[in-house]
Amino acid sequence: MENEFLTALRQIATHPAARGLADDAALLDGLVITHDMLVEGVHFLGSDPPEDVAWKLVAVNLSDLAAKGAKPVAVLMGAGLHAQHDWNAAFAAGLGRACRAFDVALIGGDTVKMPDPGPKAFGLTAIGKAGEKTPARSGAKPGDRLIIAGNIGDAGLGLEMARGSAPIIPQLLNAYRRPTPLLALGQALASHVSAMMDVSDGLLIDAQRIAEASQVKITLHLEKIVISSSAQSLLGNGLEGRLRAATFGDDYALLAATSAIPQSLTESLTEIGAVSAGTGIELRWHGTAVPLPDKLGWLHG
Amino acid sequence: MENEFLTALRQIATHPAARGLADDAALLDGLVITHDMLVEGVHFLGSDPPEDVAWKLVAVNLSDLAAKGAKPVAVLMGAGLHAQHDWNAAFAAGLGRACRAFDVALIGGDTVKMPDPGPKAFGLTAIGKAGEKTPARSGAKPGDRLIIAGNIGDAGLGLEMARGSAPIIPQLLNAYRRPTPLLALGQALASHVSAMMDVSDGLLIDAQRIAEASQVKITLHLEKIVISSSAQSLLGNGLEGRLRAATFGDDYALLAATSAIPQSLTESLTEIGAVSAGTGIELRWHGTAVPLPDKLGWLHG
Repeated sequence: MENEFLTALRQIATHPAARGLADDAALLDGLVITHDMLVEGVHFLGSDPPEDVAWKLVAVNLSDLAAKGAKPVAVLMGAGLHAQHDWNAAFAAGLGRACRAFDVALIGGDTVKMPDPGPKAFGLTAIGKAGEKTPARSGAKPGDRLIIAGNIGDAGLGLEMARGSAPIIPQLLNAYRRPTPLLALGQALASHVSAMMDVSDGLLIDAQRIAEASQVKITLHLEKIVISSSAQSLLGNGLEGRLRAATFGDDYALLAATSAIPQSLTESLTEIGAVSAGTGIELRWHGTAVPLPDKLGWLHG
Repeated sequence: MENEFLTALRQIATHPAARGLADDAALLDGLVITHDMLVEGVHFLGSDPPEDVAWKLVAVNLSDLAAKGAKPVAVLMGAGLHAQHDWNAAFAAGLGRACRAFDVALIGGDTVKMPDPGPKAFGLTAIGKAGEKTPARSGAKPGDRLIIAGNIGDAGLGLEMARGSAPIIPQLLNAYRRPTPLLALGQALASHVSAMMDVSDGLLIDAQRIAEASQVKITLHLEKIVISSSAQSLLGNGLEGRLRAATFGDDYALLAATSAIPQSLTESLTEIGAVSAGTGIELRWHGTAVPLPDKLGWLHG
C-alpha cells in the first residue's frame, strides 16, 4: 500500500522544497520543515507512559531537523485523543517538558476526540531555521566515508522490554521511550557532510535509502557499528547480534557520508562503511561478505 | 476533555507566534501556519468519496489561511490510511487536484497504516505568505460592524444529505464535501478589518470566539444572515430555520469586524451585526431579543 500511495504523492510533490518527498524534511525559505506521526499500536504502545509518548513525538521530529542541521524553532501538533483525563493531562505535561528541554515553541495545532474503538494518533510539524548547508539524503559520492553518531540497537531492545518480552534494563527502555535528537551534533556536522539522515527505521534500511537517493553503493562493516555495553550484554558481540541491532528501529542516530571527518567531531563519530559507484548496500563482517537479511528495518506502512 | 487539554496546551504556547492558541493560525517570520485534522467518523463519513475527503482536507486548512489574509504556499500531510488500494489512490488523485486548484505545493509529510478497527485520520499543515496585515480574532472593537462573506447553512444541510437523512440537492451536498476557501476575498479584506476568522464550527460559536478573544459583545441580527435559496427551500425563512443554519458547521465563510466596509468589496459582504462594549453574543430577530440556543455550534472535542 504505502509504496503506491507514496509514488502517487511524489507525482504531486514537484516543488523543489519537497525534495521529491525523498528526504527527512522540506526546505522552504530558509526553514526546514518536517511532519511525522505517532500512532498507538504502530509507533507506541498503549502501556507507554503518556509523558514519554509526548516526549517521543517531539524528539522524533526534531531528529529530522537534526539530520538537516537545523535549529528547532516551533512545532504544531495534531492530537487525536480519547476522553481519558489523566492520560491527556500527563501527555500535555510531557509535551511542555519536551518543548522546554529542546527550546522549541508550540505555536498551533488541532485536537480531536477519536472514535472508539480506535487508536490515539498524533502528528507533529516541526519547523527549524536552516543552517549554512542543509544536507539531503541524495548527496553521497563515491569515495565518501560512511559515518554514524549514536548507538544502534538500544531502542529496539527497549521496545522488547516495554512489550514485556525481556527483563528491563532502564537505559535501554529509556532509549526506546525518550530518544534524544542529536541537534548540536547535526548542526555541527551539516556543513561537513555530503549526505545525512537520521536512523529511525533501522540502520540497514536507512543506509539503503541514502544509497538509493544518492545513486551509489554503500558498504557497511558490521563489526564497526557501535552498540552499547548494555545492548552487548543481550545481543552478544557476534554477527547475529549485530545484524539484529542493524535492523532495529527508533535509534535516532545520525548517519552521514563525508569526504573528510571533521577533526573536532571525531570523538562523537564512528566510521562504519564506505561509499562507492554502484547501487544498494552490501554488508561485511571482518572483511567477509554477508548476505542481506530479508528484513532491513522497520516499516510502518 | 478538550477544554482542559487546551488550557494545558495554552500554558505551553507562550511564544508570540502562537497567538495563545486562540487564533486560526500562527504567525512566524512572515509565514502564516495552521494545522487541522480530518478524522473519519468525526469530520467526514466513511461513505464520503475519497477525492472529496482530500479536497476538504486541503480546503479547510486553506480557509484558515484565507481568514488571516495569507497566500497559500505549501502543505505537509500526515495520512493514516487502511490497506484499501482504490480508496487511497482516489484520495491521492483528489489531493493532487486540490493542490493544483489552489496552487499550493505538497512538500512533505508522513503516511501510516492505521490499526484496524480504527478510523482513517489525516492532518494537514498549511503554510502561507502573510500579507501586509494578519488579522487576529482578538482585534474587534466597540463600534465595529460585523460582516460576513459566504453562505451559512448549506454545508450542514449537505451533511444531512451525505448521511442519507435528507433528499440530495447537489449544490448543498457539494458545499459539505467540497468547500471553497475564500482566499482572494480574505487577502483583499485583511487590511480593512480589525478581526477575522473563518466560520468552521457554526456562526454563533465562531462569533462568540471573536467576542471572547476581543473582550467585546457581539450582537447578531439573524434576519440578515445570508442563506442560499436551496437552503431556504429546506429551512424556510423563519427564525427557527435561521437559528439552525447559524449553528451548523463546515461553512468556511469569513466572519470579520470592521470600522468601515471597503467600497470595492461591498458586493461580497453582508453586514449581520455590531460590536459593542461587553461580553458574549446576543441575538436579534427583526429587532427582538432571541435567547441563545443550548448548542452554539459543532464541537469535535
